[in-house]
Amino acid sequence: MKLGRILRDSLEGAVPRLVVVQPERECVIDLASAEYQRLLYTGASEDAARRLASALYPSSMSAAIAAGPTFLAAAARTASVSIEDGSALLPFEEVRWLAPLDPPVMRDCLAFEQHLRNTFKGDIVPPQAIPQHYQMPLYYKGNPLTLIGHEQEVPWPGYTQRMDYELELGFVVGRAGKDLTPEQALECLFGVTHFNDFSARDIQVQEMMGLLGPAKGKDFATSLGPWITTIDELDAHSLTMIARVNGEEWSRGSSSTMMWQVEEIIAYVSKGEGIQPGELIGLGTVGFGCGLELGKLLKPGDVVELEVESVGVLRNRVGAPTPTGWMPERRTAATVPAPE
Amino acid sequence: MKLGRILRDSLEGAVPRLVVVQPERECVIDLASAEYQRLLYTGASEDAARRLASALYPSSMSAAIAAGPTFLAAAARTASVSIEDGSALLPFEEVRWLAPLDPPVMRDCLAFEQHLRNTFKGDIVPPQAIPQHYQMPLYYKGNPLTLIGHEQEVPWPGYTQRMDYELELGFVVGRAGKDLTPEQALECLFGVTHFNDFSARDIQVQEMMGLLGPAKGKDFATSLGPWITTIDELDAHSLTMIARVNGEEWSRGSSSTMMWQVEEIIAYVSKGEGIQPGELIGLGTVGFGCGLELGKLLKPGDVVELEVESVGVLRNRVGAPTPTGWMPERRTAATVPAPE
Repeated sequence: MKLGRILRDSLEGAVPRLVVVQPERECVIDLASAEYQRLLYTGASEDAARRLASALYPSSMSAAIAAGPTFLAAAARTASVSIEDGSALLPFEEVRWLAPLDPPVMRDCLAFEQHLRNTFKGDIVPPQAIPQHYQMPLYYKGNPLTLIGHEQEVPWPGYTQRMDYELELGFVVGRAGKDLTPEQALECLFGVTHFNDFSARDIQVQEMMGLLGPAKGKDFATSLGPWITTIDELDAHSLTMIARVNGEEWSRGSSSTMMWQVEEIIAYVSKGEGIQPGELIGLGTVGFGCGLELGKLLKPGDVVELEVESVGVLRNRVGAPTPTGWMPERRTAATVPAPE
Repeated sequence: MKLGRILRDSLEGAVPRLVVVQPERECVIDLASAEYQRLLYTGASEDAARRLASALYPSSMSAAIAAGPTFLAAAARTASVSIEDGSALLPFEEVRWLAPLDPPVMRDCLAFEQHLRNTFKGDIVPPQAIPQHYQMPLYYKGNPLTLIGHEQEVPWPGYTQRMDYELELGFVVGRAGKDLTPEQALECLFGVTHFNDFSARDIQVQEMMGLLGPAKGKDFATSLGPWITTIDELDAHSLTMIARVNGEEWSRGSSSTMMWQVEEIIAYVSKGEGIQPGELIGLGTVGFGCGLELGKLLKPGDVVELEVESVGVLRNRVGAPTPTGWMPERRTAATVPAPE
């Protein structure tokens, strides 16, 4: 199944709605609308139909996933009913896509050795950082509140002059678990989506040198979608991954070249802290999957597309730089007395 | 006002409830229960009183804060009504505390220069990382799903042998903003609480050397509470901060020794990505505010207390190590061909 999240107008402004996506028909089914109609047809009152439909299909995808197998079973049933009513069925051209997921926590790994070797070379970040990446699958945590969806514009913060894309796969956690083995972790996978980790390279490198991980270098925008493909529909270990800029292919790779497998990464993430339904785990950039590895940068107006076999195409146009106003003034050292 | 979050039994298991805390009376007022009774008294039906009370006081503190000034005004009104009914008023000895906040995003800075100089010394992490911290207020992002509250046990993941505490203040964002000045950022502050950033030093250092920031070194537990003190009740720039282990004072400092002020930090955090109601921003460890700076470590059973002037006392006992099972096997380099 393919599941997404779109924006629709309501009496109280635009609201996120969960949808089943049918790419072959180029349409989506608004699950709450379709379920409302299905319930009416079975004899439910309008009030009861609205109440049950919105409980089953809230505006949050991670809340829906947290219902467990009930959610996917219900979505299959809702979508299987033939919908002719215009309020539930929308053609792609009328869809305003949102990121298909609103994860409570969002991590991004560095699981492709080729990307590690291309970027940790000394002129960018020191190669001394490399050994740790062979020891365990390291990751940084992103800001899930800045996720954007298909066809949404990528904001360009005024503090960066070096904008880049990253060709990645994002995995969605389907259920809770803690201290898992890789075999158990596989059972917790819900689905896969494109993950374009837009990056402000100049500030990102400065931040990473401070050892607390990237922040402003990443947290202005990460693109996800257009939809989540459930894990039963593909083999996550051998997906061809392609990135195009303005229609020209810049990057091509395969998920088969990972040094850490997705089940190892999720098992590791679960250590000591556990995983929860709806969490998002990016696997990291595939080798040669970003401009930094190719000596190229993005410019305002560029259109970036990620295409992964069986997962569709995620497209975003890069916006114009916008001023961010006040920035902190550099401090001078020793503003407090040295320890005695 | 002092606001907390506690666990109470319901017909469907234990549920989080928002409370107003009255430390001088050593009791809390369950806001939804008190508002239900207040509404009944004004003539509302039982059903309407339940519906309105739960909409105003959901189980999520960040959702409540997102209502804006309505929330604090309502809480003041609800708590001002004299409550004699046992279902709304609970003495401290009956309270099961939760972390007072469930933030959508959680950041932790390094705003105290003394802590930077004590810990980035070469034997722990390389001093080359220091200059970036004078350039801008760097931070890492934590896992908000592993927050614990007052008197909750600190889990000890089996992967660490070096457990430590950190004496910190946590600031709660009250409203949304983006690309703020420090003056505007001050207006977005909601409140303050203790922030004990428990740390697994051995794995934390390995992670930081990998340049993506701490993860397993921090994300097993961060303690918050017991309650949030609203910002009108204190001066955040001159708070005395104390940490005790098993009753003995280990750390003492002041928020006046920060190299980055709280309003500069929040303004910086808002750059390019914005801040949202309920976000949590730790300021970082005060100088000499952790065992790492004192040559000391925690052991299972230790009781750690943080005490900040006007903010109360946050107490946690450290649990026994628990096995985390499977861990990743080290990879050998060059598992994929070198670039041509």
